[in-house]
Order: sequence, then C-alpha cells, then structure tokens
Amino acid sequence: MSYNLLSGKKGIIFGALDEKSISWAVAKRAHEEGATFVLTNAPIAIRMGNISDLAQQCGGARVIGADATVVSDLENLINQSMEHLGGKLDFVLHSVGMSLNVRKKRPYTNLDYDFMHKTMDISAISFHKLLQSLYKADAMVAGGSVLTLSYMAAQRTFPDYNDMAEAKAMLESITRSFGYHYGIKNRVRVNSISQSPTQTTAGTGVGGFDSFYEFSDKISPLGNANAAECADYCITLLSDLTRMVTMQNLFHDGGFSSMGVSHRIMDRLDLLQSAE
Amino acid sequence: MSYNLLSGKKGIIFGALDEKSISWAVAKRAHEEGATFVLTNAPIAIRMGNISDLAQQCGGARVIGADATVVSDLENLINQSMEHLGGKLDFVLHSVGMSLNVRKKRPYTNLDYDFMHKTMDISAISFHKLLQSLYKADAMVAGGSVLTLSYMAAQRTFPDYNDMAEAKAMLESITRSFGYHYGIKNRVRVNSISQSPTQTTAGTGVGGFDSFYEFSDKISPLGNANAAECADYCITLLSDLTRMVTMQNLFHDGGFSSMGVSHRIMDRLDLLQSAE
Amino acid sequence: MSYNLLSGKKGIIFGALDEKSISWAVAKRAHEEGATFVLTNAPIAIRMGNISDLAQQCGGARVIGADATVVSDLENLINQSMEHLGGKLDFVLHSVGMSLNVRKKRPYTNLDYDFMHKTMDISAISFHKLLQSLYKADAMVAGGSVLTLSYMAAQRTFPDYNDMAEAKAMLESITRSFGYHYGIKNRVRVNSISQSPTQTTAGTGVGGFDSFYEFSDKISPLGNANAAECADYCITLLSDLTRMVTMQNLFHDGGFSSMGVSHRIMDRLDLLQSAE
Amino acid sequence: MSYNLLSGKKGIIFGALDEKSISWAVAKRAHEEGATFVLTNAPIAIRMGNISDLAQQCGGARVIGADATVVSDLENLINQSMEHLGGKLDFVLHSVGMSLNVRKKRPYTNLDYDFMHKTMDISAISFHKLLQSLYKADAMVAGGSVLTLSYMAAQRTFPDYNDMAEAKAMLESITRSFGYHYGIKNRVRVNSISQSPTQTTAGTGVGGFDSFYEFSDKISPLGNANAAECADYCITLLSDLTRMVTMQNLFHDGGFSSMGVSHRIMDRLDLLQSAE
Repeated sequence: MSYNLLSGKKGIIFGALDEKSISWAVAKRAHEEGATFVLTNAPIAIRMGNISDLAQQCGGARVIGADATVVSDLENLINQSMEHLGGKLDFVLHSVGMSLNVRKKRPYTNLDYDFMHKTMDISAISFHKLLQSLYKADAMVAGGSVLTLSYMAAQRTFPDYNDMAEAKAMLESITRSFGYHYGIKNRVRVNSISQSPTQTTAGTGVGGFDSFYEFSDKISPLGNANAAECADYCITLLSDLTRMVTMQNLFHDGGFSSMGVSHRIMDRLDLLQSAE
Repeated sequence: MSYNLLSGKKGIIFGALDEKSISWAVAKRAHEEGATFVLTNAPIAIRMGNISDLAQQCGGARVIGADATVVSDLENLINQSMEHLGGKLDFVLHSVGMSLNVRKKRPYTNLDYDFMHKTMDISAISFHKLLQSLYKADAMVAGGSVLTLSYMAAQRTFPDYNDMAEAKAMLESITRSFGYHYGIKNRVRVNSISQSPTQTTAGTGVGGFDSFYEFSDKISPLGNANAAECADYCITLLSDLTRMVTMQNLFHDGGFSSMGVSHRIMDRLDLLQSAE
Repeated sequence: MSYNLLSGKKGIIFGALDEKSISWAVAKRAHEEGATFVLTNAPIAIRMGNISDLAQQCGGARVIGADATVVSDLENLINQSMEHLGGKLDFVLHSVGMSLNVRKKRPYTNLDYDFMHKTMDISAISFHKLLQSLYKADAMVAGGSVLTLSYMAAQRTFPDYNDMAEAKAMLESITRSFGYHYGIKNRVRVNSISQSPTQTTAGTGVGGFDSFYEFSDKISPLGNANAAECADYCITLLSDLTRMVTMQNLFHDGGFSSMGVSHRIMDRLDLLQSAE
Repeated sequence: MSYNLLSGKKGIIFGALDEKSISWAVAKRAHEEGATFVLTNAPIAIRMGNISDLAQQCGGARVIGADATVVSDLENLINQSMEHLGGKLDFVLHSVGMSLNVRKKRPYTNLDYDFMHKTMDISAISFHKLLQSLYKADAMVAGGSVLTLSYMAAQRTFPDYNDMAEAKAMLESITRSFGYHYGIKNRVRVNSISQSPTQTTAGTGVGGFDSFYEFSDKISPLGNANAAECADYCITLLSDLTRMVTMQNLFHDGGFSSMGVSHRIMDRLDLLQSAE
C-alpha cells in the first residue's frame, strides 16, 4: 500500500544491514512512498550485510560507506548525497548503535571504560556529529525531518541492556538539544522513536533477549511492534503531516511504556505459583 | 494535498463548533483523505455554531446531536452512526471540554465543587463513557483508532488553566487505562494529542490567553502549532500507519514540552531589565 | 529512634484506620519525632477501626471526625484543630481513598458513573477541598508541608486498580496546581508520595492484590517498601529539611518506578517456560 | 540546628571547592549531623580552592586528592577512606562536572568532540567509575546511600547548558542502572538530586547564567533553592529515613520542574508589551 507520502523527497538512511534491520524496512517503505535516498552504513557492515540487494529493491539507490563516528566521513556522505540526489535533504534516518561491553559480555558492574566511550561515540555522539555536519553544510531543507531509533532503556532499567542504556539516554538528550537549535535555524525537526525490542541481527545479540522479548510482548496490550510496523510509523514522521512534532521521544511499542503490569504476566506468575 | 490515508474509513468526529475548532480542521482533512464520518456535538453547540456548513463541505456528512455526558445519547449516536455509515467504526475523535470554574472566573483557590464535578464529567469522564459505549456495542473494527485532545497542563501548572488541569490529567489517565482494555479486546488503540495553545473559540475564553499564547510561542523552537497542523497530525494517528501506537500522550507543540527556556524568552526578559 | 525532626510542630493526620494503615505508622513516628497533632477520619471509619488506641499511643492525641468530602466538616476540623493545638498548622497528611467500582468488582469497561464520581470526590477532590479550606482559613504556617499518598497507577496501567488510576492522576494534578498557589501565598509546599503496594486493610481489598504485590516486590531491587518505611520517609517531608521541595510526586517504592524488568522476574518466567 | 541524623555514619564527599559549593554546604551539615567523612577533589581544585578550611570546620576531616576520571585514584581514595574512617562507608556524595565546550564557549552546533568525550568522562562516567570501584571493593555498608547532583537540563533544553545536558542525562541513567545492581547486591541506594540553578563558582561560569537564574527564580513558586537548602535535602537522603528510595532523580527546585508558566513571568512579559 502506498500513499505517496514522501513523493519527491530526498534523504539518507543509515543502518540497513540485512532483511531484519528496521532501516531495511524503512528504506523499502520510503521507496514505495516515493522518496529517493542514499543508503549508508559502516564499510564493514556493508561488506557483511546485503545492502546492495536493498539498493536494487529501492530502484537502484546509491550506497555510500561512512563511519558514523568520523566527521569527515559524514561530511563526505552529506556532500555526495546532495550532489547525487540533486539538492538538499528532506529527511535523514539515523539508526546506529553498538556496545563492546555487551558484545564482550562485560557485566554492568565491571565495564571497560574504553569500550564505554566507544559505545557513546558510536551510539549517541554519532548522532550529534551527523546533525552538526548537516547543520554546518546547511544540508536540510526548511521543515526537514531527522529521526533516530531509541529504546526505553533510556528511561527504565533493563539489566541486560548494559551501557546501551546510557547511550540511549544521551541519544534522546541530543535529540532534544539539537532539535532546539535546528528548529530555530530553519524549522528542521529532530525526533527519536522508542521501539519495542525487535528481532534484528543487532537486537538478538543482547544476552537474555528471548526472555525479555517475551516479557515485553506479554506486558504490551498490542504485543511487541515489529520492524515493518516501525517503518510505517517512521514514514509518518518523515512526511509533511508531522511538521510541528519536534524534540520528542515517541514510543512505538504496543503500549508497553504505559503499562505497570498486565493480566497476561500476572497469570503466568500465578500459574507458576500454583505449580510449586 | 491528499494521500488517501483514510480511504474507505468510517468514523465519528466530536467537537466541531466553528471554523476555528481543531475538530473542524480534522473533519475537513479526514474528508480529503477519503473518510466518511458522522459529525456530533452537544445540541446547544450545534445551534450556536456552524456545523451544518462543515457537513456540507464534507460531502454531506450526517450530523447527530449528543450530550457527551449522557450515556444513552452516546449509545444512540454510535448505533445511528454504524447504521448510517454501514458498519463498524475505524476511528473516533473526541474533542470535548468545558469548565464552569473557568467561565465564571472562579480562582483555583476558590473553586465551586459542583462546577468541578461538571468539569470532570464533561471534559474527562465523557471520554470514558464514549469508550465504554463503543466497547459494549462492539462498535470499533479491529485495529481502530480512538483519539482525544489534551493539553500540557496535565503535566505542568499553567495557573489560568484552573481545574481543566485536573480534567486533562484524568483524560490522559483514561486514555492509558482504556487503551489497555481495548487493546486486548481487539487491538483498538487509544491516544491523546497534547496540542499547543490554539486560538479556538473555546481556547481564547481562558483568562490571560493572549499572554500565555505568546509565551508558549516564544519558548517553542517552531512556535505554536495551529489547528490545521494539528489536523494533519491527527490524520496520521487515525491511519493504518500507526497501528502499534497506543496509550500515548503525544505532544504536538513545536517543541514546547521539551524546553526549559529559550533565547527568545531570555532576550525579552533582558530587554526589560535593561529598560528599567 | 527519634531525631526530634518535628519538635514543636503541630498537624492533622487523616486516614489512620488500624495498625496496618500507613497513616497509623506516620502518626506514631510523628509523635516520636516530637509533633503534636489531631487524628481524623470519617465517622464510620472511626467506629470500625481502632483510632482511639492510636490516640492513646500518641500521648492522648485528640480525635475529630470529619467526612473529607464535606467542606463544612473540613472547616470545622481545621478550626477545632488550631484551637486545640494552640495555633496554625505546620503539617497535614491526607490519606483518603476509596472506589465503589473496586469494592463492587465492576470491571473497568463497565463502570458505574455515580460510583466513579464518588471515587473522584473521595480520593482526589477531597484533597482540593482540604487545601482550599486550609487556604481560606489561613491555617498553615509559612513554609508548612501538606502531603498526600498516591500510587504509580497515576502514570502506568495496573488493570485491577480500576478507576483509582484516574483518582490518583487527578490527586497528583491537584498536588501540582495547588502547590503553585500555596507556594506563592506563604511558601506552603504540597507533595505526594507514590508508595509501593502496601498490605493495608484498604490495599488488600483490591482484586488480584497478592499476585500484584509479588510482581512489584520481584521487580523492585529493594523489594516493596512497607508502611513503617513510608512513615520514615513522610517524616522527612514534613520536616524543615525539605522546605524547597514542592509540587512533586515522590516515589517510595524500592526502585520499581525506574525498572523495565528485573532478573528475578525473568528467571520466574524462564522457569515456567522450561517446566512446560 | 542538628538532629543527629548521620550520627556515627562514615562517608566521602566530592566536589567542595569553596564556600559557594553545594558540597561545601553538605559537608558542614553532615558534620553537624554527626557524620565523619573524607573530603576529596581533583588535585588542581584542591590547590585552587579552600578545602583545607572546610576540613578544619568539619572537625579536622581528612582530605584525599583524586581525579574522578582515574579508576586507580578512586580505588586509592576508597581504600584510604575506609582505613582512615575505620570501616565501610555509609554514604558518598558525588558532585563532579565540567565541560570544556562550555568553558571555551563553543556553541552547541559547533562542538569539539574531544571536549565532549571529556565532558562525559568527567561529568557522568566518573560516577560509574566511582560506583564500580565501590562495588568491587565492597566498600558500602548494606543500605548505604550514594548521591549525585544533577540538573533539569537532563529532561528539558536550556540552550546555554550545552553538552552538560547530555552529561546530566547520562548521569541520571547511570543512577538508575547502577541503582538496580547495587540494590540487589546489598541494598545500597543510588539517587540524584536535580537542583535549582545555584550561584556556585562552577554554575556562574555558564554563559547567560544571570538571566537564566532570574527566569528560573520567577517561574518557581518558592524561588530557586540555594546551596544550604540543598544540603539539608541531601542530609535526608543520606539518612536512614529514606532507605527505600532508590534509582530516583529528585527535584529540589522550589517547584520549577512542575511549572508551565507563572504569573510572575507573564506579568513581566506583559509589562514589556505595554511598554513597547
């Protein structure tokens, strides 16, 4: 189903690794909705994943590698994208995150601080670098939309999420802070979507993901939101229908964020109690 | 501009009094987006306003009077609407609110408690009555969307907003509570939009509205959102692109809710200081 | 252990029914900390409970019956209390709540609206009536402290909590709204404590209380807070050490409010999964 | 006035530079309340400030220099403190923050990223390093209290606060995340106080501090809270009366955080309007 919500719009989409990526789904939907865009990812992720398949499915989108922590890479990406797309950008989707503390299974009470700085650099500061590069290059059209993907660990503790909690808290703070400055400059809005746990290649790497995914699904009255549904929501936020929404963190989570406890979880716990 | 986002969808829209009403703007946009719907308001508001003009502009929409505090009126409205529209409802927009304490200029420290109960009944409990009537009549399609309009006085104190602050806090609580039950029943989502102060006939009745409107406009990096922009945002939340968003209060406010202070306000205050 | 934190302070304490009441624990601690106060409750609660035992344990505190929904009862209570205690009040603890919808086991999707108005009147508006009566009688010393007890259902949905969710949302809104006006008048602060589920006579009446109490206890890193611990916390908020804290809702919950999920809950759910 | 709230308690207090520091006020109050403690700060801050005067006023407290970003310094500080004080610690106050981007007047849209990493390391990650060092050394008694000082820029945008907004957001996230782990280990609570803008040597370095201080003061019904009042509040959170409060960010701000707008600010703006 297409509505032409992004007809004629130009953008950059970060973070499509493979078919499971949220960014992959967003790219496909953005293409359906009439957008043209550049796909980008870190060079190693481009080699490991299937981004060229996605590019083909999106009408032969251009792929430009960039390390999101390297300002000159971002500047190059922005300049090349504007040249390739023939003008300023209407939208950018940032979806970048990684923690070596998670990957190396360091408990939160025994973090490696070099890793922690890398977590922040990759998962949060990269968003500031992107915004600052866009801002300096005056690369966004007036009223454009910049979007990033977050998770509710920014507000509440999910122990296995480790130092990514701090990264997401910082990411959402950058969203607000830069949203102010970019709003004043030329009405560019900056928002984050706080998405349900999603069975992506990155997401499922977190320890205890399955139990946690189940818990979240059973608390949420609509269950967990998936990548395709998230892509639909992203489209609305990249469209002209949401031009006064900025500096917001928007939960796309089947209701999880507003739940204390659900009957489905209480029933499970009661079942256990009665089995003992 | 139309995207056919509501093509074939059926609904009920409350609260269109005159051209300034947010509901008026939503009805016009919903019509453009392909929806058919019933317009409703309290009998006295129908007499005072121009709702029949709106009905004409919306392809001859049916107007059905209902007092939103009277359950039998709501039941009748729902039944007649389903009959008229030929099936269950895809969406309902609730936009109902009034405080006699505000109208009669009672200070918040000298409230009349009969008035306060009326404020709650009209501005908050009416939403529960509507939801409960829809629920009992099984009037919503699976995945349908119910939306209400709120204001940030639910979270923070704006002295002139008086007991409407409590009404909006309660309204947003009903949004969450019923959102759980309706989500479990058949995936109906329930959300509120927390809109900038808007120059509607109702809004401008609040004492000190002009100063406050200015303050809000100067704090918000994008300025205050207007009724037409709010209508655009409503359309996204009534569409199928937001099917996993529920139990949320969504700020549509040009960034106000995430602001501490802006340079525009600090400059004004400095100006004053230097003038003294 | 006593610190003389309330030495010479005068107050009114609502809501002590029996030994399990939070107010009972607060009264005992306030007495230990050097306060003198009047105990109050609805006439029927005075007859049903053991408040006179408490009065004796608190150095012969005076008991004055008052229906917290009746303004003239509150005015009489305030006047008699000032006369009996010999001056204006330093503190008031409001702990009043009841829902007939809960008691009569009405599901949230089938509420009785007369009951709902009573829930609001007893559990939320009574706090406004109290504050307005104190304000009009100029009954609080400058810098005095008014405190009420709330629950996190004001922010998140706990299905069995029913329309008490709306009451607590409204109660916390009154806390903010009146906190502004009373702060400006003479620096009186108004706050709510959002307490863990507590095994009081009132609390345990809620359906599914036991499962829910267990869930909350297992999510919270410190477990649920009990009535005696809550009393300790109340003492700090009635003391002079917190004179700049106002319009706040303060969680006293062993960490529950900041939790997404805990290992203790995930282990329980895994256990169940592996048993199946 | 002393209540012996910290009688016999041992602790470490970071960040007392001079008489204006919040930590200075906390140290004096903690001494009055019966605590013994070690004072610490970065070696350069010890040289620049008057910490030895404070040590004398606190009964000859020991001063141990430590760079809060250097784990071995923290380990040494903790070990020496336990040895000097004769046992495990009951409390620690962390008050550490600095941004070179602020000092060097870099606008938020032109940040230096080495500076930003330093801001995070000094102002947020230092708190994790401290907690992790305490945790590994098993240096806290069961039920001990760790407290840090934050600011509302973690939730809302104050443009001149620059990248300290991100630091405070991260700091509060660490408070929650570590609060979970330390709570489970041995009931140690971890909280932050979100304090009004305060006329400290550090605070007044922020550009536009004066205008902003005024704005905050005029919005808050009780005005801005000062350092001495903050010290009083800290004492309650280091005492045994708050043992179930954890993972919280607690506003100590005269009500600012719950305000939308105040009459005092609207009157100022009206005055300006009428003068024009």
